[in-house]
Amino acid sequence: MTRIAVIIPAGGSGSRMGPGAVPKPMLQLGGEPLLRHCLDRFLERSDVRWVVVALSQELLESAPAWLRSDPRVSTVAGGTERGHSVRNALAAVPAEADVVLVHDAARPLVSPAVIQRCVQAAAAGESVVAAVPVVDTIQEVDDDGTIVATPDRHRLRAAQTPQAFPAEALRAAHQRAAAEGVVATDDAGLVARYGGRVSVVEGAPENIKITTPADLVVAEALLTCRTS
Amino acid sequence: MTRIAVIIPAGGSGSRMGPGAVPKPMLQLGGEPLLRHCLDRFLERSDVRWVVVALSQELLESAPAWLRSDPRVSTVAGGTERGHSVRNALAAVPAEADVVLVHDAARPLVSPAVIQRCVQAAAAGESVVAAVPVVDTIQEVDDDGTIVATPDRHRLRAAQTPQAFPAEALRAAHQRAAAEGVVATDDAGLVARYGGRVSVVEGAPENIKITTPADLVVAEALLTCRTS
Repeated sequence: MTRIAVIIPAGGSGSRMGPGAVPKPMLQLGGEPLLRHCLDRFLERSDVRWVVVALSQELLESAPAWLRSDPRVSTVAGGTERGHSVRNALAAVPAEADVVLVHDAARPLVSPAVIQRCVQAAAAGESVVAAVPVVDTIQEVDDDGTIVATPDRHRLRAAQTPQAFPAEALRAAHQRAAAEGVVATDDAGLVARYGGRVSVVEGAPENIKITTPADLVVAEALLTCRTS
Repeated sequence: MTRIAVIIPAGGSGSRMGPGAVPKPMLQLGGEPLLRHCLDRFLERSDVRWVVVALSQELLESAPAWLRSDPRVSTVAGGTERGHSVRNALAAVPAEADVVLVHDAARPLVSPAVIQRCVQAAAAGESVVAAVPVVDTIQEVDDDGTIVATPDRHRLRAAQTPQAFPAEALRAAHQRAAAEGVVATDDAGLVARYGGRVSVVEGAPENIKITTPADLVVAEALLTCRTS
């Protein structure tokens, strides 16, 4: 059985959520924190052997009990950038892991089917990103806001997470990035940067990223819709 | 006062909504059809002098009373493509119109502020598209789904509607397109194609396009949030 490690960078402050005492991973959705929704989706798989959560110092010190209740879950300190958090978490992934998934804590509505597609591809040696077709026309603008190009929408995908990698592919990319002083905002981009082939697998429209208060309203509606 | 004409292409079947007897512009949101939400937002402005709605043959024949209740509203037959619908509607816009706005019936949550920004720019002679920053990373893929490029997200905008034009700019572009046999899916693209400068004005994240049943759930949540 494929041995899966999951990395969840959850160090973000969520500044676009507006001022508030609750760090983004702990925002409530359907009565549970965003981070817990994510954790539960991965922990329900028996082939997930390790989950490493990168947390802000504040959250590390006040980590709630549910975060410690499954022995497969460990925590590390996040960094100033997402790339640092993933790097710290990757260092805590045991060498026996075959596949590493990286998933944003801000995407609590990830479905088992999307996770399965990512796992399947990575277990077959591919580096992949869950992604969906782009609904709106995408325009490229210059500094003045003048539209300078309209890329063919049918060739565009909106990237989500999970991203999934054969463990050695992700480790190799991060080692090289560390040596070169590169901090990636995106792991798939990092693998591609060093010549790795990265492709998309089908994500899900409801696998939205919680960025603004309106997104939380939307997520509540989607959650109700799913569970009713 | 600027004399504004609004074109609403509402001929779409909404095939992605799944099978059902209700044409997309007549889908209910908060107890009112999508199309009515759109109409109301424009008709509340006194400088909107004409609204031309392009409808499918089926809807033209069964048009509800509220569609006929404001004398500023007229209807025309839509075409097989969105471009045909806009062209038919534009032919019904009186010559006195200074500014023409084009707005999708599938965007019922358009706000007065977004409409105002579009009007203001077009009244000043600019061709504009309401647009928002792109939240997700956008990937460009080839036919196999391999990621071939990651365009700089900060230069990308997701286009919405309204699009707004000085009337003569839109007419000139459509006349030329008709002469050349070009059918545009997008009016801003058409104006740009013939050398016109088109720029973006700030849209709104909640001005979503209703494409799937999940979008309708999301729109209900956003509407409740707005009115509560």
